[in-house]
Amino acid sequence: MSSIIGTKIKISVFGESHGEAIGVVIDGLPAGYDIDFDFIYEEMKRRAPGQDSLSTTRVEMDIPRVLSGVFQGKTTGAPLSAIIENNNTESKDYSELKVKMRPSHSDYPAMIKYGGYNDFRGGGHFSGRLTALFVFAGAICKEILKTKNIYVGAHIKSIGNIKDEDFNRVSISKELLNDLREERFPTLNKDVPEKMKEEIQRVKKQGDSIGGVIEGAVINLPVGIGNPMFNSVESVLSHMLFSIPGVKGVEFGEGFNISTLKGSEAKDEYYMDGENIKTYSNNNGGVLGGITTGMPVTFAAAFKSTPSIALPQKTINMDTRQNDILEIHGRHDPCIVQRAVPVVECAVAIAILDILLQ
Amino acid sequence: MSSIIGTKIKISVFGESHGEAIGVVIDGLPAGYDIDFDFIYEEMKRRAPGQDSLSTTRVEMDIPRVLSGVFQGKTTGAPLSAIIENNNTESKDYSELKVKMRPSHSDYPAMIKYGGYNDFRGGGHFSGRLTALFVFAGAICKEILKTKNIYVGAHIKSIGNIKDEDFNRVSISKELLNDLREERFPTLNKDVPEKMKEEIQRVKKQGDSIGGVIEGAVINLPVGIGNPMFNSVESVLSHMLFSIPGVKGVEFGEGFNISTLKGSEAKDEYYMDGENIKTYSNNNGGVLGGITTGMPVTFAAAFKSTPSIALPQKTINMDTRQNDILEIHGRHDPCIVQRAVPVVECAVAIAILDILLQ
Amino acid sequence: MSSIIGTKIKISVFGESHGEAIGVVIDGLPAGYDIDFDFIYEEMKRRAPGQDSLSTTRVEMDIPRVLSGVFQGKTTGAPLSAIIENNNTESKDYSELKVKMRPSHSDYPAMIKYGGYNDFRGGGHFSGRLTALFVFAGAICKEILKTKNIYVGAHIKSIGNIKDEDFNRVSISKELLNDLREERFPTLNKDVPEKMKEEIQRVKKQGDSIGGVIEGAVINLPVGIGNPMFNSVESVLSHMLFSIPGVKGVEFGEGFNISTLKGSEAKDEYYMDGENIKTYSNNNGGVLGGITTGMPVTFAAAFKSTPSIALPQKTINMDTRQNDILEIHGRHDPCIVQRAVPVVECAVAIAILDILLQ
Amino acid sequence: MSSIIGTKIKISVFGESHGEAIGVVIDGLPAGYDIDFDFIYEEMKRRAPGQDSLSTTRVEMDIPRVLSGVFQGKTTGAPLSAIIENNNTESKDYSELKVKMRPSHSDYPAMIKYGGYNDFRGGGHFSGRLTALFVFAGAICKEILKTKNIYVGAHIKSIGNIKDEDFNRVSISKELLNDLREERFPTLNKDVPEKMKEEIQRVKKQGDSIGGVIEGAVINLPVGIGNPMFNSVESVLSHMLFSIPGVKGVEFGEGFNISTLKGSEAKDEYYMDGENIKTYSNNNGGVLGGITTGMPVTFAAAFKSTPSIALPQKTINMDTRQNDILEIHGRHDPCIVQRAVPVVECAVAIAILDILLQ
Repeated sequence: MSSIIGTKIKISVFGESHGEAIGVVIDGLPAGYDIDFDFIYEEMKRRAPGQDSLSTTRVEMDIPRVLSGVFQGKTTGAPLSAIIENNNTESKDYSELKVKMRPSHSDYPAMIKYGGYNDFRGGGHFSGRLTALFVFAGAICKEILKTKNIYVGAHIKSIGNIKDEDFNRVSISKELLNDLREERFPTLNKDVPEKMKEEIQRVKKQGDSIGGVIEGAVINLPVGIGNPMFNSVESVLSHMLFSIPGVKGVEFGEGFNISTLKGSEAKDEYYMDGENIKTYSNNNGGVLGGITTGMPVTFAAAFKSTPSIALPQKTINMDTRQNDILEIHGRHDPCIVQRAVPVVECAVAIAILDILLQ
Repeated sequence: MSSIIGTKIKISVFGESHGEAIGVVIDGLPAGYDIDFDFIYEEMKRRAPGQDSLSTTRVEMDIPRVLSGVFQGKTTGAPLSAIIENNNTESKDYSELKVKMRPSHSDYPAMIKYGGYNDFRGGGHFSGRLTALFVFAGAICKEILKTKNIYVGAHIKSIGNIKDEDFNRVSISKELLNDLREERFPTLNKDVPEKMKEEIQRVKKQGDSIGGVIEGAVINLPVGIGNPMFNSVESVLSHMLFSIPGVKGVEFGEGFNISTLKGSEAKDEYYMDGENIKTYSNNNGGVLGGITTGMPVTFAAAFKSTPSIALPQKTINMDTRQNDILEIHGRHDPCIVQRAVPVVECAVAIAILDILLQ
Repeated sequence: MSSIIGTKIKISVFGESHGEAIGVVIDGLPAGYDIDFDFIYEEMKRRAPGQDSLSTTRVEMDIPRVLSGVFQGKTTGAPLSAIIENNNTESKDYSELKVKMRPSHSDYPAMIKYGGYNDFRGGGHFSGRLTALFVFAGAICKEILKTKNIYVGAHIKSIGNIKDEDFNRVSISKELLNDLREERFPTLNKDVPEKMKEEIQRVKKQGDSIGGVIEGAVINLPVGIGNPMFNSVESVLSHMLFSIPGVKGVEFGEGFNISTLKGSEAKDEYYMDGENIKTYSNNNGGVLGGITTGMPVTFAAAFKSTPSIALPQKTINMDTRQNDILEIHGRHDPCIVQRAVPVVECAVAIAILDILLQ
Repeated sequence: MSSIIGTKIKISVFGESHGEAIGVVIDGLPAGYDIDFDFIYEEMKRRAPGQDSLSTTRVEMDIPRVLSGVFQGKTTGAPLSAIIENNNTESKDYSELKVKMRPSHSDYPAMIKYGGYNDFRGGGHFSGRLTALFVFAGAICKEILKTKNIYVGAHIKSIGNIKDEDFNRVSISKELLNDLREERFPTLNKDVPEKMKEEIQRVKKQGDSIGGVIEGAVINLPVGIGNPMFNSVESVLSHMLFSIPGVKGVEFGEGFNISTLKGSEAKDEYYMDGENIKTYSNNNGGVLGGITTGMPVTFAAAFKSTPSIALPQKTINMDTRQNDILEIHGRHDPCIVQRAVPVVECAVAIAILDILLQ
């Protein structure tokens, strides 16, 4: 119903791509946690455009300005808010985009929903630019999770048909997640990134784009968090993941593939590992009945190819109500999957902290 | 955080598998709508066990007793509530199941979460039996949606590796959805059900179980419902779908496969169909930027194989904290996918009505 | 927006005065707490009609039937639900009350809101009968609060112009609250109840009714619960108190009178009482900036006289849309204040437990 | 639970008195409404300090900067956000106020709640300064309400023991409310303001402060908005009103006084006024059963005297945990009631729009 989400930790996101500024309010953070702004900026830099030849070269100075909620370097318990100015909004001519609806973008349904009053420039409130706020908020949540030895990380599972290996779901180390975080194309098989980049270059040359899948993990969660039914860990995480523009599928553990396994194959049998209870396999991705098992929580999110492509596209003109042709100019990312990795991690960190604090 | 969900239409579900009764409160229904109890019972019968040789033969008399919210055959606007008595709860010996955690069930995380105070018999509040309440509530929502010419339907997309065709996402008729509703194994390709049943019989003979995927559709939704970001149609529907026990993956439109399509392949281009705006393809499943496009909303949910299998399983004993072996006796469904079809439809009907009324 | 309230503890209330049954779902209760049904019944008996010659003689068998959430005498952590059957709903002729709106009752605005589809018999979902559910739910919350040494109690501050003393707000003992609970007309000054009863008898003979004020207290709350601004203790408690039919005013500490005190008179100065921090006075009713100070939380709620009186009243007829005269027959309470005492206590107990568990 | 409130219109407030900036996000505003910034500034000026010799002379440049949600002068439907920079935060020495708790302020419970990490300077997130945001947000809601012919206004009912008349609750005109808005001391009896000012000057000279009561009204609301029970109009408005710092009592219609009226005196009898249904009296303040009757909704809120007084006060020192004496220096308002009038109006406007849009 709104650009607010959460139960204990509530995130309120605002702003439009070409407005004055974008911002976020994080409500419900516990008091007394150190905020390491260097870590936050690093996370934001992972998402920032212009990091390599494969991303848009538009330079964004995504330096958040914290307005409240931090005092003497620590959280105060009051709402933590930050804004990012929209300095680089070129005064481009948007008259064509106002009437010609970009296929597979939000333009058309948004125009109908808001009666044409929405700020359509650059997608407005629907812009992927707002995911910078997910990263800002999520980086703070990651810092708090870290104090509880909980880590969130991810790798690129596939770009188009170029596939990485899956996580070994019974054993994911903090070190592995940290190593992945260092890389622009984080993968488990180190031969894969080169092929992924080639694939992206290939579609870029065609004026086309490509999607991919990101697999993530949360480790060291205690047993027994989450809820049965309507607030299962899967429900809450998927709700958050589908809030990220471009996500069209979410799965946990073996996900869609688990439907092809027999009960005898899918079962995650228990054993005592010293004092600890573990499972030999983790096809359920660390969640049973909506509640954590203590095994790594693993999930995957499928991103569609960016619909902003250089090729001409058939569309309709809302003024004339006739068929028309649209050509989108300017530079666009041929693939946003590598930039989406920290977005996925941070979105999940927000949701996990929210579940944990309940 | 609770067994309550929804914004405008709130559903509060209560009960345990072996308690006195299970029930549901539907809060926020508009007043003055006819309630056709025959339709509700039909829907509930679609989910009920014991309909064929493939399902558990335990006979449940799932006749809901409406306690409030209906007056002279119509909704009053006050909370509509109903309970279903748990008449058939055999006084089976649960002492073994109290200490031996069933793999891939909620037993272990629930015991930890609730400190051992949860009613563990038959899964308690986690039992699939509670999905009867989803069907009750969803059937009422379906009736209200019907007055707006909106229909929800589904087919079995796969059982194990036996696959049906996908919906033709640009054109799904009310008639097709009604026809599917008549069938116990609703599929688009009429040759498939026989193979599915054979597969289920096969795993049943092995004392094993099998999962599957259900593809659903909502048709005739207006353009422009839903929200950007945190309350996208995808977020709200996936939240609801992952509340159904056994679901491990949810996708919209082309879903995970869309990540392999190039932008030029995935794009849903617009055209004028007389006065109406339509798209040639519907890879996005009728949702862009979280908002409906007016095309059919399509989704799929992956169900794992039921973990209650006849084969012995390795587990731990919570009393001795030693490894142990569990053998589950009694009759269990080798496949719950066919019974889950109305559950999926009705869960989605609840969420869609909630979105629509906002 | 709905008959559901709460953040951590959610209460969902359903039912109509003359429907099948009324009921409540209490969602979010922690697991493992003993439920003492004798205590619950005692609390419900305090509210029940027919206890003395001053209350309606209609006998209600308000025996709640618990359907879920309790296992082996303790809370399970799953939703605790209970229903109370509406056995005594006489098949009275409601045709006159359907069209003649009772002044100062909900009849007219409810008819407009629900388009005439609401169950108007006996007030339907608006009936004071539903406050039995507040008592049921609140009694359970009281039991949990008791384990933390937190007690909720109340006295009748006034009936009409007959006034009791106020609480000594700096010192309210558990014993005092328990003693008050034993009485049908709980007051601090023991001479007052006789006068109150005489006043009620007097208005009763006139076919009239009278209101009053209830002052309540919550003792032994820890310092620092509640929130600034929108979820202040006062906001949350007043929200709940105004949910009780007939309440038209709510205040904390000195309440309305505090507006006449100068800062030097109203101030609650601190002092060390051994190891503890206390205030010499408690004009603020134990809440500053929305947060508890550790002093008793005190509040008062003003109830209007019941609008069901024997005297003829001017009204309109919704069929003819003409002025008309209404005479309400049957027995009605000339004063509901004494029966409202446990309702106020229990409603507050629900809200306080909710705040405490956050 | 958080500094967020609302159902359909959600307000998220952030900032601390002496932090970088304070701000508000208004989520859920319908698209296409004109925003008249002159009106907003006028409203904010009504609340601003330094307007007369009775208020603090600290000059605040409370010019909000709108960051999002407005495009080409109209609401976009996306979150509308604004910030107000904290330019005038003097670098006063706060070391004494850090350890000596100001009586009747939030200092002590806040310090306990947040473990001493809260920004205590000037009250931090608890500061009355944040009510400027209520006015900003409420002014926008007033503008939208105006398009539906709904008006919110208020007068000072009393300051200390100096009393104005009450609203004639059956007939409150738009003109009256507009006239009241023009005045710094809005009263119905025009002889009263002089006496009120004298009273304030008197307590000011004594280094003391005084409180008061504000009575407000909302006119031209349709019949039938609001809800029974937990979301009654009274519940929602009181929740909001008790969010304003210093409010200790809230009542509707005759409020506390209604408890002294007999049923025959309190009843609001209906009559046909041409085509319209009206009541001869309006003791219930336009709300029955939680739902609007179409008569003016009237309410009153009692404000305590500001606890910041020049006189020395007994307190405790949190470092030494000893009794101590506090002297607060600097200029403080001897009375904030006149400045609170627009805050009350705007807070109610937010809540009323939220109820109306549901």
